[in-house]
Amino acid sequence: MTNEEKHPRFIKQHRVEFYETDMAGIVHFSNFYRWMEVCESDFFRSLGENLANKMIEGKAIGWPRVSASCSFKSPTYYGDIVDIRLFIQRIGVKSLTMTFEFVREETLLATGQLKTAYCEFTDEDHGRSLRSIEIPENLVKLIEGDS
Amino acid sequence: MTNEEKHPRFIKQHRVEFYETDMAGIVHFSNFYRWMEVCESDFFRSLGENLANKMIEGKAIGWPRVSASCSFKSPTYYGDIVDIRLFIQRIGVKSLTMTFEFVREETLLATGQLKTAYCEFTDEDHGRSLRSIEIPENLVKLIEGDS
Amino acid sequence: MTNEEKHPRFIKQHRVEFYETDMAGIVHFSNFYRWMEVCESDFFRSLGENLANKMIEGKAIGWPRVSASCSFKSPTYYGDIVDIRLFIQRIGVKSLTMTFEFVREETLLATGQLKTAYCEFTDEDHGRSLRSIEIPENLVKLIEGDS
Amino acid sequence: MTNEEKHPRFIKQHRVEFYETDMAGIVHFSNFYRWMEVCESDFFRSLGENLANKMIEGKAIGWPRVSASCSFKSPTYYGDIVDIRLFIQRIGVKSLTMTFEFVREETLLATGQLKTAYCEFTDEDHGRSLRSIEIPENLVKLIEGDS
Repeated sequence: MTNEEKHPRFIKQHRVEFYETDMAGIVHFSNFYRWMEVCESDFFRSLGENLANKMIEGKAIGWPRVSASCSFKSPTYYGDIVDIRLFIQRIGVKSLTMTFEFVREETLLATGQLKTAYCEFTDEDHGRSLRSIEIPENLVKLIEGDS
Repeated sequence: MTNEEKHPRFIKQHRVEFYETDMAGIVHFSNFYRWMEVCESDFFRSLGENLANKMIEGKAIGWPRVSASCSFKSPTYYGDIVDIRLFIQRIGVKSLTMTFEFVREETLLATGQLKTAYCEFTDEDHGRSLRSIEIPENLVKLIEGDS
Repeated sequence: MTNEEKHPRFIKQHRVEFYETDMAGIVHFSNFYRWMEVCESDFFRSLGENLANKMIEGKAIGWPRVSASCSFKSPTYYGDIVDIRLFIQRIGVKSLTMTFEFVREETLLATGQLKTAYCEFTDEDHGRSLRSIEIPENLVKLIEGDS
Repeated sequence: MTNEEKHPRFIKQHRVEFYETDMAGIVHFSNFYRWMEVCESDFFRSLGENLANKMIEGKAIGWPRVSASCSFKSPTYYGDIVDIRLFIQRIGVKSLTMTFEFVREETLLATGQLKTAYCEFTDEDHGRSLRSIEIPENLVKLIEGDS
């Protein structure tokens, strides 16, 4: 489960904002799920890809979430500089699973996992239908990187 | 993992707000973690307890999160009325684990799990120290309920 | 500026959630803007209308914001029950201006104003174009109510 | 009201995150109030000051908000790079008023104003009392800057 021997595929740095804290004086835990997405978004952008819905051949394509989890190790505070480290855990046929480490200097603040599916939004059911589709091979290669 | 044969310990109803949606037209997944807390908060209130830090004998007591996860089954939309069902999975010596079902009419939208620790905030390390402590017996009984 | 002699057009009750607080121990001010919208959304729903984009004759119609302001009178806390009172200030040809009072029991917590325009989202500029249009007469009458 | 001829006292750049959008496909307006604070927070940090409550002679000092407003000129989208420009409008005896411009390349997206009071949190009324106090002279000078 640890990524100790692996290199992160991507790192995003975030400074904790005042509005991300709660009355306990620490970061509200819901922000860690947003930070996973922020890191994923920047990772995709670095590949020339786009997290958000884009139109391909008249169909909207996006990455709805399958599941997301975090474990919290140490409290995080306003002003902290947090390194968000993204690791590729598994590229499936239709889904992508990433793990994350949140680190402030030497301190592991939290770990997380995000599984997301490659989907098209179809017109069925009043445009409310999602269908997972195969991740294109060139996109798989981009995500994997060279190593 | 399913709670099919169990009764929820508590149910909270929530109508999805406009600000909880994202550009994909569905609820942003980070809100489900907030909704677990909202349900937990109302459950605690129904017991005469308080989720937030309270002072007991000069010490601040609260429930920082140990871990939280959700699996998303079906997209959720603005205006949806969501039943948030709370189940007690385990009451440990110093922690509480709850599971959740998010249901719109007959549709299971998501499931979740939230583990939270009973902690005191101590003065050590400039007031930044958290230490998990035993959940008092009367509080355990309140959480368990009679059934 | 005060609405002392006027009756609210709509009232929404909200209990302050833990995630809406910040490290100062009070509600983060950004939530008041969301609460104006929550109240407006419920008001529109009570009229059979919809705040969110709907399709009319193949065009998406919505209510983007023109401006929003709040003045904060007294701090608001986790667990507080807040009455959000909506007043119609002005129905223009293409826009609607509402004022709000946020009240906890006898205490005025804040006042606010929200101006919103009736707009269609056109296909120009890659679907990014907004154009304000006249509010239909029947909708004006619904918003005004009987008085 | 325009700041055309003035230089910003501080500029913060922000890239719009996916979670900041709503189902209309644009940034939810409540985020602009957070972005004013994010810019103010970084400005204060650049002065060696701290937006958040700090302890001075045993008393907690902070900057609760008096009022905040925004006017929205043009829709803002996921991925946009937004320059947040902070201008000092007025330094009062006990309060500070800033104005803001939100700009994407040549486009003015929104303008804003934030008035915030220098306060101590006293022990009266169960620690819930706020009292505005005079901004220390050296802090006034820091905020004004040299120009």
